[in-house]
Amino acid sequence: MQSKIINKYYNLKQKSGSHSPSLSSIKEEIPELKIKVDACFLSNPYATELFMEYFKKEMIDTNEIFSLLEFYPAQNKIIASYVEKQLELESGHVFICNGAIEAIQAVIHRFSKEKILVILPTFSSYYEYATIESEVIYYYLNKEDEFKLNIDDYIKTVEVLKPNTIILINPNNPDGGYVSHEDLKKIISKLSWVENIIIDESFIHFAYEDIDLTMKSIVPDVVHHENVVVIKSMSKDFGIAGLRCGYAIMSKNRVESLLKNGYLWNSNGIAEYFFKLYSRKDFLEKYEVVRKKYINETKLFFKNLLEIPKIKIYPSRANFFLIELLGGMNANDVSAELLCNFGVYVRNCNDKIGLNGEFIRVAARTNIENDLIINALKKTIERH
Amino acid sequence: MQSKIINKYYNLKQKSGSHSPSLSSIKEEIPELKIKVDACFLSNPYATELFMEYFKKEMIDTNEIFSLLEFYPAQNKIIASYVEKQLELESGHVFICNGAIEAIQAVIHRFSKEKILVILPTFSSYYEYATIESEVIYYYLNKEDEFKLNIDDYIKTVEVLKPNTIILINPNNPDGGYVSHEDLKKIISKLSWVENIIIDESFIHFAYEDIDLTMKSIVPDVVHHENVVVIKSMSKDFGIAGLRCGYAIMSKNRVESLLKNGYLWNSNGIAEYFFKLYSRKDFLEKYEVVRKKYINETKLFFKNLLEIPKIKIYPSRANFFLIELLGGMNANDVSAELLCNFGVYVRNCNDKIGLNGEFIRVAARTNIENDLIINALKKTIERH
Repeated sequence: MQSKIINKYYNLKQKSGSHSPSLSSIKEEIPELKIKVDACFLSNPYATELFMEYFKKEMIDTNEIFSLLEFYPAQNKIIASYVEKQLELESGHVFICNGAIEAIQAVIHRFSKEKILVILPTFSSYYEYATIESEVIYYYLNKEDEFKLNIDDYIKTVEVLKPNTIILINPNNPDGGYVSHEDLKKIISKLSWVENIIIDESFIHFAYEDIDLTMKSIVPDVVHHENVVVIKSMSKDFGIAGLRCGYAIMSKNRVESLLKNGYLWNSNGIAEYFFKLYSRKDFLEKYEVVRKKYINETKLFFKNLLEIPKIKIYPSRANFFLIELLGGMNANDVSAELLCNFGVYVRNCNDKIGLNGEFIRVAARTNIENDLIINALKKTIERH
Repeated sequence: MQSKIINKYYNLKQKSGSHSPSLSSIKEEIPELKIKVDACFLSNPYATELFMEYFKKEMIDTNEIFSLLEFYPAQNKIIASYVEKQLELESGHVFICNGAIEAIQAVIHRFSKEKILVILPTFSSYYEYATIESEVIYYYLNKEDEFKLNIDDYIKTVEVLKPNTIILINPNNPDGGYVSHEDLKKIISKLSWVENIIIDESFIHFAYEDIDLTMKSIVPDVVHHENVVVIKSMSKDFGIAGLRCGYAIMSKNRVESLLKNGYLWNSNGIAEYFFKLYSRKDFLEKYEVVRKKYINETKLFFKNLLEIPKIKIYPSRANFFLIELLGGMNANDVSAELLCNFGVYVRNCNDKIGLNGEFIRVAARTNIENDLIINALKKTIERH
């Protein structure tokens, strides 16, 4: 029975390529599998709760939801104006998209025609979405340096290799490594000649540099840089992956060029509702509370993970931890056992290029779920 | 007061380019305007009701909706398999998209690099979405022929102009003109050398050729033609524009090429739910009933429109009618008066290229709403 489930899971994983199968696909294909904790899903569950509260009160209880589903949502520029209000940006700098992945595709397909430098390990779409006309080259982070980006070495490499496009995820996925605000400004300033600098801030709401846990986005510093594009997913920090909300900040020229022949109606009705919320003070104030609560719990989770033997936890300023399995353990086995024996779904990093060893990635969830993860990990590792 | 509203509406129309402002934008920007009938929105309201019934029962009342919004939906290929089941197609022929407009963009940007022949009047995205590398040329339908496509003349023109891509919307938007199944097969067979034949069947569920109102899609005839792409919106026939559901049928090679570097997660959670419904027999049986009911009411609406003096109604097999205003009436004035005096929102066709004269387009709604439209039109026209 157990091995049958494991086989079904391996098949589904195979079909999903370099990503994890979605929860809905697992439910569909392996209904007998009971998932208790989705530690693969990199979202703040308290933010999800907050959004759902608003949504229930304002859209479901009022029956407004039916209008959201029936009628055409507003066009890209109109929804962009809500985000521009929130970020206090001039009109014309925001490109709204159907999940950040649409921005990745749009920006890479439209602007990155030649040599793209990708830092490894990374979110695989950054190299998979490259067009056949472009060449992808890699800059490797080392396990020995705990996947920390060496700023000076990186700048020097870019100067030697002369890529047209460089991509930085900050904090990085899958390790959570963080480049400080000052260091990022230094990179952008030293590399101002690079045609396209893509900064992915999908996890920036989980990062902090002071004890107040203040979020430090690079957007205010780069909005007038013609060569910088900042990509932002809403799925993670707001916990609403099913809505497909994302945006990118870029020069007005670039937004115009993308909207000139595409992306007119790429938001659904519920995404439009979310973007309106995202510009509302009452919502953002409450969000700030759950953001900090979640960061504090994530820190505690990290501390507890550190106590488990035979694994190495890499430093992270995101809401997940890259875990190396030591002593001959195998990521395939450990993730399958966590799933089938404990209902704990973690990211098996076997398909991630640029990782040398056996790795899993575990997202922080609620305190209660984090304890389940810790317990499941301990018991699984004990058996190996 | 009235003229102030009219001015606000004109401003909003300006901002929306060659499309109508969405209902949500109108509500946002002109809250004092009460829209009673949205006759701009080309959807079957009974199909909307049917979907909402299912959605309420299966997703809202069970609280399943919260999972749809929280978690990642399935990947493109998995959702495509639901549509493949419904259409009885081999796996690999369906490309799922975030509204049909994403398929238009994907297909035109990826496959139509040179000369594109567009029939006018048309849905403006077909020429607006062309890339700068491609050249758009036009084939004009004539008012004098009631915008009917002359098959032989069209084929001859294509043979002379040798475009790489030809586009046919069937029934056509904005006039509703219909090319019979046999004629369409003839076009495809005579023009088998054309690199890309794009058939947009977004309104095909409203067309019929026999007294049983049987729907005749071209999909089964062309699925093995490497050069034919069929595009399908779900917003119209299923009345769910806010969900952004669409798909395209094309060769496996083309689907592979699109998915190779993009479009991995372009459906939202509720769209995924819809596509599952779309493959369920119970839902489709009920849909067939409301489809026929709506067609019959649309026929009655047509008869009643014909009795209004000083306008010409063009023949249509879609769920809308192109109306020419005669005797010096002006489409700007008539549509603004319908909106502000009667709350009836129609499509002002002033921005449509290829129409020579003053035109509005009116969608069929429920019987009761159709009567409101007829009454508002009569009274407005009487005053001119």
